[in-house]
Amino acid sequence: MIDTEKKPLGIALVSGGMDSLVMASFCRTESELALLHISYGQLTQARELACFLSIADFLEVPASRRLVANIEYLKTIGGSALTDKSITVPKADFNRADIPATYVPFRNAHLVAIAVSWAEAIGAKNIYIGAMAVDSSGYPDCRPEFYKAMNETIRQGTKDGSGIVVKAPFLQLKKKDLVLLGISHGVPFEHTWSCYRDGKKACGVCDSCALRLRAFAEADATDPLPYEAKPDYCWTKTS
Amino acid sequence: MIDTEKKPLGIALVSGGMDSLVMASFCRTESELALLHISYGQLTQARELACFLSIADFLEVPASRRLVANIEYLKTIGGSALTDKSITVPKADFNRADIPATYVPFRNAHLVAIAVSWAEAIGAKNIYIGAMAVDSSGYPDCRPEFYKAMNETIRQGTKDGSGIVVKAPFLQLKKKDLVLLGISHGVPFEHTWSCYRDGKKACGVCDSCALRLRAFAEADATDPLPYEAKPDYCWTKTS
Repeated sequence: MIDTEKKPLGIALVSGGMDSLVMASFCRTESELALLHISYGQLTQARELACFLSIADFLEVPASRRLVANIEYLKTIGGSALTDKSITVPKADFNRADIPATYVPFRNAHLVAIAVSWAEAIGAKNIYIGAMAVDSSGYPDCRPEFYKAMNETIRQGTKDGSGIVVKAPFLQLKKKDLVLLGISHGVPFEHTWSCYRDGKKACGVCDSCALRLRAFAEADATDPLPYEAKPDYCWTKTS
Repeated sequence: MIDTEKKPLGIALVSGGMDSLVMASFCRTESELALLHISYGQLTQARELACFLSIADFLEVPASRRLVANIEYLKTIGGSALTDKSITVPKADFNRADIPATYVPFRNAHLVAIAVSWAEAIGAKNIYIGAMAVDSSGYPDCRPEFYKAMNETIRQGTKDGSGIVVKAPFLQLKKKDLVLLGISHGVPFEHTWSCYRDGKKACGVCDSCALRLRAFAEADATDPLPYEAKPDYCWTKTS
């Protein structure tokens, strides 16, 4: 058990992207944070881990409250452009109806399960994940119903009275508002990586780059990351 | 995608213990099996992996349909006598009301999540787990309510129409009947390991040994494994 004098202990899943950075910064008011980062064999694994460590420093979370877990079996399983180099990372298409090839099957269930095990071992109650359902790629494990069902699974699958709950506070937030929230918290956007590709600069044209660039544009703010390209369509507002 | 000519593809979680051996043998009539084994940093990890490979040979499942995943982060997380050597494996106590120290926090959620990801990648529908709620140690992630909630989580967290379902066909089976079923299927009990300890022989006194020995005794059958001890209390029938 980790003792906390002030606030209850909570676990924040921090990928190294901007969503989880803002979320972890936001949740510090509610919980004393422990930070969980998970490498799953994705193309940008090393870069995201480096971002996680920078973010953990920014959040002033000591090493004893940081956990890096490796689930590279997701690369063996494949089925996603993020974990299988033979599948092309598609260009962003805000009008796409189907789920893009970057979907990693059931990935977020693994992330939450690891957080729950850690929470039960150290006595944490709240688990925070930066999943967003609005301005997203439409992955099934990012929708509100998934988190509702997961909470029942946690309640039934942990010791009675564990009180562990997964919270996704930004599920219904527009990404533009996430950017504005991050700016108000003074978060280091320069220490994040959202691009699905592993280039020297962010590609600017994958789903993740496009959603990020559009959010900064809508927030009338400047993304500090360098980009290979900043296509006009990133700024096209959709309903 | 793996093509199957005869039956739909199903994934059986095979730990190397006798429950999953009998279950996988039983489910072959319903599905063409792919086998998933998971090492989680438990004391008996190497031995259980060897049993898995023997069982996979017995079930005649080709290498292309076997997956071994490693989640040793559960050892880093600890909180269980199975993954933390500083916590003593307790002796069996059939009258215990609390959850024993061998409980690995939320472990089965990880096992199922890995199976679901693999199922979504290869197009399998049924996932089989040998969890038993009767004649068990009372772990929360072995109770029926957990699997019911997990199925809703799978439905919400995978692509619409994935049709993936986790089945725990032996949840309500008495362990004695599992032994009888295994005998009727001619399964190689000698290629299984249930003991929580990693001795040359099974200890005979941990929860897992005691439940197994009692089941064989109640089935009027002989367990082929060598034991350090076979305490009388293993044969005490409880209601």
